[in-house]
Amino acid sequence: MSRGFHLVTSEIVRQLPPLPRTGIINIFTKHTSCGLSINENADPDVRRDMEQIMNRLVRENEPYYQHTLEGSDDMPAHAKCSLIGPDLTIPITQGRLNLGTWQGIYLCEFRDYGGARKVVATIMGE
Amino acid sequence: MSRGFHLVTSEIVRQLPPLPRTGIINIFTKHTSCGLSINENADPDVRRDMEQIMNRLVRENEPYYQHTLEGSDDMPAHAKCSLIGPDLTIPITQGRLNLGTWQGIYLCEFRDYGGARKVVATIMGE
Amino acid sequence: MSRGFHLVTSEIVRQLPPLPRTGIINIFTKHTSCGLSINENADPDVRRDMEQIMNRLVRENEPYYQHTLEGSDDMPAHAKCSLIGPDLTIPITQGRLNLGTWQGIYLCEFRDYGGARKVVATIMGE
Repeated sequence: MSRGFHLVTSEIVRQLPPLPRTGIINIFTKHTSCGLSINENADPDVRRDMEQIMNRLVRENEPYYQHTLEGSDDMPAHAKCSLIGPDLTIPITQGRLNLGTWQGIYLCEFRDYGGARKVVATIMGE
Repeated sequence: MSRGFHLVTSEIVRQLPPLPRTGIINIFTKHTSCGLSINENADPDVRRDMEQIMNRLVRENEPYYQHTLEGSDDMPAHAKCSLIGPDLTIPITQGRLNLGTWQGIYLCEFRDYGGARKVVATIMGE
Repeated sequence: MSRGFHLVTSEIVRQLPPLPRTGIINIFTKHTSCGLSINENADPDVRRDMEQIMNRLVRENEPYYQHTLEGSDDMPAHAKCSLIGPDLTIPITQGRLNLGTWQGIYLCEFRDYGGARKVVATIMGE
């Protein structure tokens, strides 16, 4: 996955089993330098601006960083991971993810070369 | 809902059905420019300071923003939405939300004129 | 708990009852000036850098703060609490927390002297 904010709603949804009528779905990424978020699903400029905003919030090469062995993108990626979070819990209503019209699921890749990312989806309900 | 941080615990709780003895409640807002958070429930100054802190973390009118058609408050609102998050999952213990003494639920409105906001509550447990 | 980012995975896990085969665990802190996060579990420098990054994101003694009666660390602690969040929901798979190899649970203490902190764990599944 390349560095940046990626819209992954349909990639996640098409791999789900039939959903319960009512419940929740927990989506969880098993990594410490990417995150999951929900944001605007229409304009790719939002994803580009998000990447720029996060890069300015947590800058690379700060002189006080001590965890620097894995490259200049690594410690900022950990911090962004904690700010965005690895987990989302979304309601399921009438057998579908109850997202708003403009909501999409983002995989936020904070490393320059993060490789493949694993996301675990757990469905609860009846 | 006006721009700012609003304490909405009682507005949410009074619309809930009887709760299970033990479980969780997921609270989810279906929008991309507001968020849900838990913070101090007593001093309105905390909510005012939170608004000021978030406005400085993600400033309006940055020259590098590309998503600008909907106004200067729009792209910062999307970024704040991802930083605060749209979802909360709170334990239910002995039939009540198991919040700490000082914890309240905030609806964080990041648009100048966000209009009505929808919040979905899903209760799991027995 | 001293101010800073603390790895508490094993302290939490060893207090859990037997877990269901599949499900979720919600972990929730009942306070408004600490948070729960998931991040790198190996290098203590990550926790040190996280503390420094958060201290620069939300600085003490900003002249515009109004909520100042409880000390210079208090309002920044509330803001950090909302940025990191009080809740985590983690998948349970094959009877264990389904964390990635490098993921650990952090209790993020944002007060200079936060005292004892309560964390509620709620397990759902079968």
